[in-house]
Amino acid sequence: MSVIYDRVALIGLGLIASSMYWAIKRAGLAGEVTGYARSPETRATAREIGLCDRICDTAAEAVEGADLVVLCVPVGAMGDVAAELASVLKPGATLSDVGSVKRHVIDAVAPHVPEGVHFVPAHPLAGTEHSGPRSGFAELFDNRWCLLVPVAGSDAGAVDRLARLWRGMGSNVDVMDADHHDLVLAVTSHAPHLIAYTMVGVADDLRRVTDSEVIKYSAAGFRDFTRIAASDPTMWRDVFLTNKDATLEILGRFTEELFALQRAIRTGDGQLLFDYFTRTRAIRRGIIQAGQDTAAPDFGRGKGGT
Amino acid sequence: MSVIYDRVALIGLGLIASSMYWAIKRAGLAGEVTGYARSPETRATAREIGLCDRICDTAAEAVEGADLVVLCVPVGAMGDVAAELASVLKPGATLSDVGSVKRHVIDAVAPHVPEGVHFVPAHPLAGTEHSGPRSGFAELFDNRWCLLVPVAGSDAGAVDRLARLWRGMGSNVDVMDADHHDLVLAVTSHAPHLIAYTMVGVADDLRRVTDSEVIKYSAAGFRDFTRIAASDPTMWRDVFLTNKDATLEILGRFTEELFALQRAIRTGDGQLLFDYFTRTRAIRRGIIQAGQDTAAPDFGRGKGGT
Repeated sequence: MSVIYDRVALIGLGLIASSMYWAIKRAGLAGEVTGYARSPETRATAREIGLCDRICDTAAEAVEGADLVVLCVPVGAMGDVAAELASVLKPGATLSDVGSVKRHVIDAVAPHVPEGVHFVPAHPLAGTEHSGPRSGFAELFDNRWCLLVPVAGSDAGAVDRLARLWRGMGSNVDVMDADHHDLVLAVTSHAPHLIAYTMVGVADDLRRVTDSEVIKYSAAGFRDFTRIAASDPTMWRDVFLTNKDATLEILGRFTEELFALQRAIRTGDGQLLFDYFTRTRAIRRGIIQAGQDTAAPDFGRGKGGT
Repeated sequence: MSVIYDRVALIGLGLIASSMYWAIKRAGLAGEVTGYARSPETRATAREIGLCDRICDTAAEAVEGADLVVLCVPVGAMGDVAAELASVLKPGATLSDVGSVKRHVIDAVAPHVPEGVHFVPAHPLAGTEHSGPRSGFAELFDNRWCLLVPVAGSDAGAVDRLARLWRGMGSNVDVMDADHHDLVLAVTSHAPHLIAYTMVGVADDLRRVTDSEVIKYSAAGFRDFTRIAASDPTMWRDVFLTNKDATLEILGRFTEELFALQRAIRTGDGQLLFDYFTRTRAIRRGIIQAGQDTAAPDFGRGKGGT
């Protein structure tokens, strides 16, 4: 793999940025990678673990001379960070981001992008329930999708170059319109996360079942929910606030369907339940065939291990 | 490990029974294990893969002379199977089951249990999204909980002996009252499964997002739901029909909470969302500390691999 950008600047040093650094290094995709995080503790941690070739004490210093600047901050902070950096961006540079919501990021960032700078929003569909600079690893994006969401007038060469970077980091790349992206993600990620958060909250609230019972006896179903519900609170608050319409639409559909299944339980309609569960099982098979997950048993935790 | 029962009969040869066989063999816990399944195909598969020391063509033959008979059929079929076997059970034998709902199983089975036979219901909290005789493996129960739910007048010696079998198969064992069991499981397993089924169904229904998009771009949240929603349809239909009250109660609480979070999204109450998500993250930490899951990233699928 050859160098795609001479200098890359990562702004915000959480799970995604730290994984990007290790993935870029693994494949030798950049000459130098600079990094900046607002918190001095995060910068100190990054220096300690060798994250980035150079950690800068200001965002402007990290961005200066960069061919690619990637905003890796929570979606709600993208606009302010872009405003702060606008005057430092090098002519001909590409500005990108990794936010989970695209319409809001585009509306917040695009007005600040100077003439001659290419704005190419992106969203890597990868994550874990861990966060922070220590949580990254080079393989996070391997065989995952990264969605590029060009804006009106995005330079085709700049889009193609960014696509090559993501492929070099292990991703598959697709291009998508911002509004469609936000709807697809509401279905596949945002609504499921809110639902998992809710169920974990209900379990905690229930006074007749102790927390320790919930924790001891959490079988597959609940345990998988707790993994999802352990994701970064700031990131997810911003996702829901900025992808409000699509998330609320999906949640509306969800409660409609849930009420139908509750009614089937109440009235003892076993056929409806059986048919529904048979259909959802087939969807799972489709996901395995599409290579998005493994068929390994025990929910992927390895054979019966903890 | 020494032999705990001279002869064990497994009735129904799905994931749980087949895992029990391999776990019993691993530790040498029984002299002989017989097996029976209603379907000739399942019996043929069992013989082909060497599941059980002896596969019988009738349930009565499998049960004859057994010291322990374990009903491993869907919860809705337990009563009929118990009625069929009642006259063949050996005096002094223990009759148990592995159903996910306990009050219903007790009500359906207990009336058929002859004098002199010890009825000790049980529920191993272990599973995968796979089913059938080929899906079992010896490690399924390792470090998982098995809940014993003795009925009024259960013989203490029989309960203790069954507990030793489950410990020998790798489980931790607790004893619990049937109604409390059903409530705990409604929270930790039954409601989460229904919710996952619902969300997967919604995704499939949504016409503006294609199935192929849902499948390709299913990130962690949705993908974990599809695992849960791929579980055995017959088993889960029976669970919901037979643990109706507790499941509906939990789902009622769930929709209340979900509406509160939806309202926070709609009104832009970021603080409520942030506080809620911070609380659920702490619950996850408790589960890891209790040893019920690993802290491995990427939802346990291994570092970024598929």
